[in-house]
Amino acid sequence: MKTPIKVTLTGAAGHIGYALAFRVASGEIFGPEQPVILRLLEMPQAMSSLNGVGMELEDCALPLLHDVVLTDDPSIGFRDADYAILIGAKPRSKGMERNDLITENARIFSAQGRAINDNASPNVRVLVVGNPANTNALIAASNAPDLDPRHFTAMTRLDHNRALGQLANKTNSLVVNITRMTIWGNHSMTQYPDVGNCLINGTPALERVTRDWAIDHFIPGIQRRGAEIIQARGLSSAASAADAVVDHVHDWALGTPEGDWVSMSVASDGSYGIAEGVFFSYPVTIKDGEYEIVQGLDIDDFSRNRLDISRNELLSERAVIEELLP
Amino acid sequence: MKTPIKVTLTGAAGHIGYALAFRVASGEIFGPEQPVILRLLEMPQAMSSLNGVGMELEDCALPLLHDVVLTDDPSIGFRDADYAILIGAKPRSKGMERNDLITENARIFSAQGRAINDNASPNVRVLVVGNPANTNALIAASNAPDLDPRHFTAMTRLDHNRALGQLANKTNSLVVNITRMTIWGNHSMTQYPDVGNCLINGTPALERVTRDWAIDHFIPGIQRRGAEIIQARGLSSAASAADAVVDHVHDWALGTPEGDWVSMSVASDGSYGIAEGVFFSYPVTIKDGEYEIVQGLDIDDFSRNRLDISRNELLSERAVIEELLP
Repeated sequence: MKTPIKVTLTGAAGHIGYALAFRVASGEIFGPEQPVILRLLEMPQAMSSLNGVGMELEDCALPLLHDVVLTDDPSIGFRDADYAILIGAKPRSKGMERNDLITENARIFSAQGRAINDNASPNVRVLVVGNPANTNALIAASNAPDLDPRHFTAMTRLDHNRALGQLANKTNSLVVNITRMTIWGNHSMTQYPDVGNCLINGTPALERVTRDWAIDHFIPGIQRRGAEIIQARGLSSAASAADAVVDHVHDWALGTPEGDWVSMSVASDGSYGIAEGVFFSYPVTIKDGEYEIVQGLDIDDFSRNRLDISRNELLSERAVIEELLP
Repeated sequence: MKTPIKVTLTGAAGHIGYALAFRVASGEIFGPEQPVILRLLEMPQAMSSLNGVGMELEDCALPLLHDVVLTDDPSIGFRDADYAILIGAKPRSKGMERNDLITENARIFSAQGRAINDNASPNVRVLVVGNPANTNALIAASNAPDLDPRHFTAMTRLDHNRALGQLANKTNSLVVNITRMTIWGNHSMTQYPDVGNCLINGTPALERVTRDWAIDHFIPGIQRRGAEIIQARGLSSAASAADAVVDHVHDWALGTPEGDWVSMSVASDGSYGIAEGVFFSYPVTIKDGEYEIVQGLDIDDFSRNRLDISRNELLSERAVIEELLP
């Protein structure tokens, strides 16, 4: 039998964590032959709720779930983790300034970066879901000096999947037949969902949709989708966010299909004129657990402008938390 | 490409429905090669929330999900359904008498039985999850005269899985190594979780645990597990119930493994002295989509007494709703 993969989830009793834990434990990320151990980390005040999640996981009698650890201690939660999925974050409260939100989360994610550095597997892969995800990933990676910064990512896969869904809907296609979708930039309102390289059944999407549709409907629709869900459900996206985590980690572990790519926020290496080190969503291909940023895509004036807007936002976020960068 | 399987969920915007829809749509029940169409049915007042679920399903860009229908009209919701999973039910409100609860749900499930009869595939398989599940299944089946009553079941798989989890925990075993667990009777406090036939790695579980443990801890522990979860989480079991639906329908569609069985509430054929027609949880094996009640198990005096208590409860539930039986 294969050695179990250890997966740590933070904020594991929250809506996204609750939707995700059972899918990880049932084998959806690593496949039906790969046992997993879940290490679920929560705040002390959420431990009763987390105990309930632990009981429900036991109640599923899942063949691949070899152990569940429930803790409010990061040194236990991240111990030997092969994957750390950081969902828990401080949400924006009423009247809170954006800069205060960024700073408070930066404190949380700098502590988690250190705890991961000191306790996790030296090859741990980290996915930041909690917002502001890109800057939280930057802070966590910067506080983990012994780990490879390429093993830290932030999630734009929900935006990526939303974009696939919208393009499929508009063109009456199946999502499996759409390739090369890209989300550029920050996981925020400045993100740039880009259909310019998309293929539908191998032919350019721009033969089926117009630039005007992309500018007037598609791009703002993806940017505002989260708010639309909250309005309909009265709750923020949870199951679809969990589904995006499944996809992100699955592809990071098992690779992207030939001829296609996915969107991930990773530390910039300067590609496409983005300042080095900033966590920016790029199109990436993945093989053997390592991503490569797709190179050589044509960036026209419209796209250049969108990329620069999102980059500027990320630079201003970094300026806010500069003192917390080692 | 295979023809999509049409799956109807009622109460699809509730906690269990929300946990389940994404797992059905991602291929967990019917496997990675089988497309599905989801038909999600809700009460009129839950349609905004259901629209949010529909948006989130679209946002997952799931390759196997070929269509999602959102409706509050049962004739649309059950149209051509291959599987109908009846989750929505009226919960017990404060001060409500148990008989009133049974009667109010009987009205709901008699209407759903008729709607399934008139709109679903003639081979539809129906799983009742909403409580009182056994008697609701009886009512639904009785109001679907054109359908095979053997294609109606009620869920005791969550109890079954909980029992596997507890026995694994107690004996420090993996659940995959435990076979022949049985839940007998009603999905209620009178259910009888029976370790008497269980094997752990092929040897009798009763060589590893005592009858006293079963009587004093195991049986009441399973009976009260739902209440324990509510106390911890402040919410009833949702993800584990959804997981049990996945297992129940998966095994009904694809069969049980050689040498093992599962627990399902089905219309009694008189086996083990239970009145014909009553929906009673039995150990069953499944092949080609048809279940067989496991015959010839030894029923000692202790077990006989437990089976009779649960049978008597089911007969008294049937007496309450007798006028709604055609």
